[in-house]
Order: sequence, then C-alpha cells, then structure tokens
Amino acid sequence: MGALEGRYSEEIMNNGCIDMGSDDEGDEGVAAIQEAVRVLLKGLGEDVNREGLRKTPLRVAKAFREGTRGYRQKVRDIIHGALFPEAGLAKGIGHAGGAGGLVVVRDLDLFSYCESCLLPFQVKCHVGYIPSGQRVIGLSKLSRVAEVFAKRLQDPQRLANEVCSALQNGIRPAGVAVVLHCSHLHFPNVENAPLDANHQEWVKVEASSGSGVFEDENSDSWVDFLSLLKFRLGKMEKNCLRNGVTSSWCPSQSISYLKGSIAASVDSDMVSAVNTILSSVGEDLSRKELVGTPVHFLKWLIAFRSAKFEMKSNGYVNGRTECIRPSLEVNGKHDVQIQSELNLSFWSQCEHHLLPFHGVVHIGYLCHEGSKHIARQQLQSIVNFYGFKLQVQERLTRQIAESVSPILGCDVMVVIEANHICMISRGIEKFGSNTATVAVLGQFSSDPIARSRFLSSIPNAFS
Amino acid sequence: MGALEGRYSEEIMNNGCIDMGSDDEGDEGVAAIQEAVRVLLKGLGEDVNREGLRKTPLRVAKAFREGTRGYRQKVRDIIHGALFPEAGLAKGIGHAGGAGGLVVVRDLDLFSYCESCLLPFQVKCHVGYIPSGQRVIGLSKLSRVAEVFAKRLQDPQRLANEVCSALQNGIRPAGVAVVLHCSHLHFPNVENAPLDANHQEWVKVEASSGSGVFEDENSDSWVDFLSLLKFRLGKMEKNCLRNGVTSSWCPSQSISYLKGSIAASVDSDMVSAVNTILSSVGEDLSRKELVGTPVHFLKWLIAFRSAKFEMKSNGYVNGRTECIRPSLEVNGKHDVQIQSELNLSFWSQCEHHLLPFHGVVHIGYLCHEGSKHIARQQLQSIVNFYGFKLQVQERLTRQIAESVSPILGCDVMVVIEANHICMISRGIEKFGSNTATVAVLGQFSSDPIARSRFLSSIPNAFS
Repeated sequence: MGALEGRYSEEIMNNGCIDMGSDDEGDEGVAAIQEAVRVLLKGLGEDVNREGLRKTPLRVAKAFREGTRGYRQKVRDIIHGALFPEAGLAKGIGHAGGAGGLVVVRDLDLFSYCESCLLPFQVKCHVGYIPSGQRVIGLSKLSRVAEVFAKRLQDPQRLANEVCSALQNGIRPAGVAVVLHCSHLHFPNVENAPLDANHQEWVKVEASSGSGVFEDENSDSWVDFLSLLKFRLGKMEKNCLRNGVTSSWCPSQSISYLKGSIAASVDSDMVSAVNTILSSVGEDLSRKELVGTPVHFLKWLIAFRSAKFEMKSNGYVNGRTECIRPSLEVNGKHDVQIQSELNLSFWSQCEHHLLPFHGVVHIGYLCHEGSKHIARQQLQSIVNFYGFKLQVQERLTRQIAESVSPILGCDVMVVIEANHICMISRGIEKFGSNTATVAVLGQFSSDPIARSRFLSSIPNAFS
Repeated sequence: MGALEGRYSEEIMNNGCIDMGSDDEGDEGVAAIQEAVRVLLKGLGEDVNREGLRKTPLRVAKAFREGTRGYRQKVRDIIHGALFPEAGLAKGIGHAGGAGGLVVVRDLDLFSYCESCLLPFQVKCHVGYIPSGQRVIGLSKLSRVAEVFAKRLQDPQRLANEVCSALQNGIRPAGVAVVLHCSHLHFPNVENAPLDANHQEWVKVEASSGSGVFEDENSDSWVDFLSLLKFRLGKMEKNCLRNGVTSSWCPSQSISYLKGSIAASVDSDMVSAVNTILSSVGEDLSRKELVGTPVHFLKWLIAFRSAKFEMKSNGYVNGRTECIRPSLEVNGKHDVQIQSELNLSFWSQCEHHLLPFHGVVHIGYLCHEGSKHIARQQLQSIVNFYGFKLQVQERLTRQIAESVSPILGCDVMVVIEANHICMISRGIEKFGSNTATVAVLGQFSSDPIARSRFLSSIPNAFS
C-alpha cells in the first residue's frame, strides 16, 4: 500500500489544485497547446492546412485541457455538502451505517494520462471506506473524487495514493482503501511489428493504497474489502504487480521500444512544443517524472510519421492485375471459394485527435484457378504500411482494399474492427464502444451472398 | 423501421431545439423544479428539512436539467466542421471510404428518460451509415448526435427515428441505420413483491430505424449491418420487439402495476408539480404521450412512501433476544454453522436523488442449538419493509441487520449489493459501477474468519 500523509489541513483539501481555471487562462492554455500541436504536425512532415488536419490542433488542445481538468478541481468543493449524518450501532453490538459499516463502490471506469508518455490509460477503480463519526459520504462522490486525480498526468501508484489520501482527508473515516486495475496501450516495436505475433497490446498493472485501518495491507479490513472484490481480482492479468508499480510500467520507457533511427529524429522544436503542452495543462516541468516525457511522447508519435515505414515486400503496389469475375455458384462447376485472412493486427493514429486507434483487419477474396498463394505476412506488411500513419479508419480500409487487389484479384472485401482511444478519452467517454468499416471491390460490391458468407466467417471475439 | 421525413432544411437541422439554454432561463428552470420536488417530498410525507433531504430538490433539479440538455442542443452545431473529404473508389470498382463503404459504431452506452414515467432507461446504441459524396463524418459525432436525442424524454422507437433522421439530414449519406437495445427498470408490484419470484427486473426492447438505402428493412444494406452486429443481437432478450415498440413498453402503463390504494393517493398538487418539471425541462405539455406521465411518475414514487408497506409478519421487530456467543471452532465440540439467505431482492429509492437503487441482500448468521427455522419469506418481508422507502444503502443495511437480529440471534452479517440508477443517469455516468455495503453484529464484528467464510459463500453473479 502506498505511503500517505495523514495530515488534515486546508492546504491538503485543495489537493494541489492550481488556480488557472479562469476562462481567460483557459483560452490562453488552449491557444498555446494549439500552436504546439502545429509544430508537432510539421515535425511529422504533415501539411497542417490539409482538410483533415486543419482543426486538429484545436481538437487536441481542447482534449488535453478537458482531460487534465483535475488540476483545476478541488476535492473540497466535491465533498462539501455531501457528508450526511447516518447512525451506526451502539458500542459493543456491531459495526454498520455511519460507524464501521464497510462501504464499497466497484467497477468505476476512468481514464487518465500517463505522465511518462502522455497516452491515455484506462482504469477500473474500486474504492472502499469504513465510515466513522456517524456520517457517510454520498456514494457518487467517491467516483467524483477519483476523477479529480485521474484527470491529471499520472502513474497508477500515485493515482491510488492521491485518491486514497484525498478521501481520507475529506471524509475522515476509519480508513480508505483503493484498488486500481490500469491498462496502458503498448505499441509494437515498429521495426518488427509484423513479426512479433506474441505482442501484448496492453500493459496491465494493479495498484492499491490504504489509509487508517487499511494502512496495514494484512489487516482484517483489507481481507473484507478484497473478499468483496474477489471476482474482479480473478480477472487480473498475470503480470499485475502489487506495490512497486514504478515508472517502469509505461512501455515507452522500455529500452527495446522504438530505438535507432526514429529516436534520433526527435528534434528540439518538437521537444519544446511538448513542454509547452505540459505547462499549459498545469504541470510543473521540473517534476522529475516529467523529464523524459517529451521524448517518450515523441517516440510514439514519430512512429506514425508518413513514409518512415517501408513495406517488407516490394513490387506489388503499382501493378493492377487483370482478373476473371468468377460466379459464386455453390453447386456449379465453377464453384469459387472465399479465402480469408482474419485478425491481422493494425495500429494507427487518428489524424483528428492525434490519438491511437487499433484493432484487427479481415481480408476476404475470391479464389479461383491460377490464384497464387499469398503469405499472411505480406498482407500484414501492407496493413502496417497504411496503418502507421495519421489516418482515418475509412481511408485505411479503402487503401488496404486497393493495395491488396493487384495481388488477390479484383474481388476483395476488407473489414476493419477498431477501438479508438479518442472515443474513450475525450468528452464522450464511450468505454465499450468500437467501430467497424467495410470496403468492397468487384463481386463483393454487387453480391450480398458473397459479403454475407465472408462476414459470417469473422469471429465474434472483437469488442 | 420507423418512418422518416427525408426533407433537408435549416429547420430540421435545429432538430426541435428549444431556445431556452441561457443561464438565466436555466436558473429559472432549476428553481421551478426544486420547488416542484419539495411538493413531491411533502406529498410523500417526508420532512423536507431533514438533513438527508435538504439538498435533494436542488440535486434532482440539476439532474433533470442535465439529463434533458438535449432540448437545448443543436445537431447542426455538432456536425458543423466535422464532415471530412474522403475519397471513394472509381465507379465500377467497388465501394469504400467516402463513397459506399459502410461505417458502423457499436456499443455506445447511453441513457434516456422514459417519457411515460420519467425513469431513466439504458440504451445500447449501434449506428451505421453509408457515406456518399466523397465525405465522412467524424466517428465520435455519431455518438454525440445520438446523445442529443437520448437526453430528452423519449421512447425507444422515437429515439431511433430521431437519431436516424438527424444523421440522414446532417450528413446526407446514402443511408443511415440505427439499432437500439433499451432496458427499462421494472418495479415489482409492491403489494405482492415478496411473492413474485419470477419478477423480471428489466423490460427490454429493441428498436430500429433506417433511412436511404436502409429504408427497406429487407435491403442488402441491412443484412450487412446486422451481420456486423451479430453477436450483439445474440445477446438480446426474447421479449425484444421489432417495430411496433409503442407506449406499452413502459411498465408503468401495465394495468397490474401499482393498483388500488396507492393509485388513489395521487393528489393534484403532486400532479401539478410533475407538470412543472415537464415544462421546466423544455417539454410541450400538450404532447399526447405526456398526458399520463404525471400519474405514472407518481405511481412509482408513491410506492416508496414511508409506512405504506406493511410487514407480512408482526411481533419480531420490538423484542431483542438474549443470545449465547458460540465460538467458531471448526474441529471443536461447539462447532457452529454459518447459515445464510442469499440473493433476497430489494428495491429502494435514493433519498439524495429520488432515483431507484436495487439489487440483492445477503444475510448470514450463526446457527446454534435451539435456533428456530426462519422462513426466507419472513426475511424478504423485512427487506421489503426497509427497502420501499426513501433510503441510503448504508442505512438500509444497518436497519435490516438490526431487525433480523432479534429473530436470527445477535451474530448477524448483512451484505447489500446494489445498482444505483443515480450513478449512471447523472453527470458521472458510471455504467458498470455497483456498490456493496456491510453490517456486522456480534461475533461477525470481531471474528474475521466468520466474515470471510460468509463473504466467500456469496455468489459472484452480481454486477
């Protein structure tokens, strides 16, 4: 459990809130981030006046300000007026209500920004506390207080500690316990992306913090709390850590991540631009955890620089093969099989929000006599080529369909299923949502049975 | 599929937005709803100055204004600037990107307010559209537009039609398809709540709407779209309806719901108060779907009027039995069994927000020689007595523990697991969250092994 300062004071109830929330300062902050994002886009070799990118600086600036609004919120304002008198039991009879009755809120979906690389990470948050003094806090406030600290640049252990400390100081209960399950997107190493079949797309850690009667992690109170989380804990990944969740959880800090030529191309203007973003959201640039942040952020951003990624195979992009249009008669002589390559993984960067989207690509094609065997790796290479760019999913789908057509024949269907980080980490926060896009070429565009046969072959696993 | 007006005009792009969004008018609306809520609380026989209720009118007013903000939002403002040029394929080659490539956003979690009873209902929303004119809409806008119509008083079919129509008019694509899976809380009939073991807590319906190439529900476009939703559709309940989802979906309209004495006690001041709420959120009181709303709303509200619900068994609330404190030696002579009654259902009303919370109660107790057999129905009756009130979960847990102690002995543990509608339907919108509260009496308060044994017997099903 993380160390906590138990002192209750006016100062702590402000929880490090930086007073920069006025409209004027907010506008200034947005303007500064916009300009910084323009520098980043130019550094990526992009045309900042291209239609899809024209408003990207504003969108990114608003998203950063919104996603870091916790710097401008005070826990005191949330808890004020939400502590309610609630009777307990007479001494010696037992523990319940406003005196000793454990209260747990489970499965709060939050997201936060990684202080090491500025990517959003997802949090499943569980909070417990034991009321004392014949009073309880409104249940929703446990969520709201957690949000204040989630909406800052964070790492899991510090987030757990800060939520715990703020609730302990704000409610003054017998104790507070916080368990977080955090998931951080883990890009593959660009240089060997197609080869690494075992790449895990998420790094997952658990962090916990306790105060008061939860200070000792072997206390009976923790046993009760964990009992009530038992099936949540059952869902945890093997590589969960307890305590000791340090800076190492962020994949951008691993030495194998994006090395060599890409790291070398980080320029000083881009570094300055990221520092401008950090100070504009309300951060202290001298904080030691932020020293490496600009370079870590730029490393993953630059992975999506146009034309930096070469296709492994050459020569098939330009030519367009002539093809026969086979009929799809199931019992006929010219029966045609639908061949498919399912679940090719892809990683891309939403050009509207500079946030990753990722998922799987399914490619179906009609196979007829004389078709040559296509290696899955060749298709994966095409997917990577078009994925590692500033993109929109609709375009990526079309580009893949167009590119595979010369090698697979002109009857091609491409389906992309994706999670967009921008759908969960901005205002709309649609945690479970996901998207699908379709491109159809040749016979697939006119033959609903062919489409249906291919679509029904796609596994249901994606969500 | 619902009928749509396809006309594109300035007027439609305002989507019935009522111009009442200024701060002054917002404050007036909040004040009017506050006063109305005070009338309702008085009508329930509550003391509006009691600590837990003092700020309830303000909380309810803010929640209603926030939850109906869709009346003050314009689809045009959302779509403006979010249509992006995106190439398709040359004619004859196929369909993709900005010309013909199906785009689907799945699993958007929304909630809306039932126009028939003012209870929130949950919506899992799936939207598809087929771009045309070489342009696409930013994916998150599909969610934002759906939110505009969800944040009004709705019924499922109208919601589907309005989202579909607004997207069709706003994007002008080849077609739009909307599928909604809606879940409406279904209170048991108070008078026989403990007897109805087969009561379903949710009424679920599916509604869908299509425009353009989706106008014909047998079209190939629908087949493609539904193929991409296949595993979502697999989760649907048997009683899902297609089309024809009329006013009958709301359980408050069923004749068996809350009849007799309770319905008779709806007074005209309370009806006027609900009408004030309806007009203050921006509704048209003359709309025919709203005629019965005040009475439907009051019917479920009054189900939670204090003291209207009598316990089935009498005589056990006052006495407190003397009891022996048995030790829990597993291998000893005086081995004591933990008896339990799990998953007693409960329904209650959050006194801070006037919104339901509901779930299950688990009761554990030490059984020793001479203990009498307790009928499950007797415990359920106690749960109902304390549940059907304006409550907070912590108090409910304590009250049940205190009440069952005289009949079960002084070693009692009560765990309540609940879903709070106020946790999903207000600002924080934590859809998957749930709560657990604990009360321990006698040996359970000092013996962690006894607690642990009982907690481990609780099934993991709740979420």
